[in-house]
Amino acid sequence: MPIGDDCAVIRLGDGLWAAAADMLVEGRHFEASWASPRDVGYKAVAVNVSDVAAMGGTPRFVLASGGGPDPETTLGCMEGLFEASEEFGVYPLGGDTTGSPALTVDVAILGELSYPPVLRSGARPGDLLAVTGELGASAAGLLALMGGDTGPRVRRLVRKHLRPEPRTLAGRTAARLGAGAMIDLSDGLASDVRHVCEGSSVGCRVDLGLLPIADDTREYASSLGRDPEVLAATGGEDYELLISAPEGVMDGLAAEADVPVTVVGEVVDGGGVAFVRDGEHLDDLSGWDHFREA
Amino acid sequence: MPIGDDCAVIRLGDGLWAAAADMLVEGRHFEASWASPRDVGYKAVAVNVSDVAAMGGTPRFVLASGGGPDPETTLGCMEGLFEASEEFGVYPLGGDTTGSPALTVDVAILGELSYPPVLRSGARPGDLLAVTGELGASAAGLLALMGGDTGPRVRRLVRKHLRPEPRTLAGRTAARLGAGAMIDLSDGLASDVRHVCEGSSVGCRVDLGLLPIADDTREYASSLGRDPEVLAATGGEDYELLISAPEGVMDGLAAEADVPVTVVGEVVDGGGVAFVRDGEHLDDLSGWDHFREA
Repeated sequence: MPIGDDCAVIRLGDGLWAAAADMLVEGRHFEASWASPRDVGYKAVAVNVSDVAAMGGTPRFVLASGGGPDPETTLGCMEGLFEASEEFGVYPLGGDTTGSPALTVDVAILGELSYPPVLRSGARPGDLLAVTGELGASAAGLLALMGGDTGPRVRRLVRKHLRPEPRTLAGRTAARLGAGAMIDLSDGLASDVRHVCEGSSVGCRVDLGLLPIADDTREYASSLGRDPEVLAATGGEDYELLISAPEGVMDGLAAEADVPVTVVGEVVDGGGVAFVRDGEHLDDLSGWDHFREA
Repeated sequence: MPIGDDCAVIRLGDGLWAAAADMLVEGRHFEASWASPRDVGYKAVAVNVSDVAAMGGTPRFVLASGGGPDPETTLGCMEGLFEASEEFGVYPLGGDTTGSPALTVDVAILGELSYPPVLRSGARPGDLLAVTGELGASAAGLLALMGGDTGPRVRRLVRKHLRPEPRTLAGRTAARLGAGAMIDLSDGLASDVRHVCEGSSVGCRVDLGLLPIADDTREYASSLGRDPEVLAATGGEDYELLISAPEGVMDGLAAEADVPVTVVGEVVDGGGVAFVRDGEHLDDLSGWDHFREA
């Protein structure tokens, strides 16, 4: 049941609301060996909050269902749901708890739209493309978790993976200033830029050299023999926002946002995503995307 | 995250809405050997519609997440979700599909409240207790499914179990007429009456001889050596409504509702549920409730 955007938009009475749901399943989205039930519950709320942020909305209510193989697991997950709900200012309406052989949690969210929702379809040639925050830290953290690496140099990266920080304020500011298109980076920049291209019937040009990548992400990726910029462009689960907007809007957003807003490319006529680095075109990065099989 | 009623009630803009979520998990709520993925998707919507019905609301929107061990299973489940959404007049906003070792589906629902919601807490001594439709057919159908019985005499019973018919119109009529308390029968009459007693700080007296039990339910239960009335009082998953209301309101409801409304008892001072049959008190029916272990 694809929504076709980060959220569905519905009119309830006199207001517009954004609605979405995301489910996390053990063995598919996380492993019990490296994510605690509390982490999983927390993240389930965070990724839904990120969907609302990507519409420019204010997250308000969540319904959460889930459960694990034993009461302790279910309780831990619920504690994480409550912790994140408090952290992100959403009110947990309830839901359902049950037993399940694999820890599973599904969160449905309702967000209030005070401005017209920012869809994937509003990117226009000439717009700048920018991202909030930083890229690749979550992917690097996942590599550390999968490799059993727990040292201090990966602690921040692991936390970025397990406890995403959705960009609600930046998203709302982008909506207020009139950004053209917005999407949250869950699949990875390369895939999510493509979603904007397809949604807006435009092309995008992204310069890998412009991606905001923290030093620890670069160093850890390099230590594993990975290209940090390719990791940042394909890794996924950043839960940053990708925004398309004219230069004037983007300047205003960069000045007002509570997180860094970094221009990484531009919207062009045509279709598809072109990646460049040092002035050279790279082949389609999807060819590089062997991350999930790592 | 207990809601404490069938739904949470929230004000969205200028209106009141009911919100709920229910999750179904293979091996816990159904077995793949007797429930098709399509049945499971259908039922997941139906039980949520029933929660809205029990508040007197009109179901409007669902978000559905889920998935199974292979794409065919997931697709079948989604087809059932769509079929039920059309059947019950709810709009599927989207959701999330994923892989999962055990077929799992979670539905979140939003229903519109045109009348003040009917809670579990409004039963008053002197009210009559009534149920819509019939009791025990779903439990008899489940016994047939668990026993591998598929003959024509159980076909209707099995369908009652796999394809519940939530009582939206009757619930809304009860709300309009000013019923005191209402709950949908998911756990079984004995348990759900107790929820009303606890929610309203009253006692209830239920006469097993008054329970509306269809002939085929009686005959099949008897053929298995089970007491049909005890089965109807404890079996669960009827997805009928239990309503507490003064006699005048109940008369109006019985006259207007699109399904039979049968008085099965009354609300009294004190606390707890008393079951009677042929003028004799029965011990607490929870002692009879060995259904799940059958």
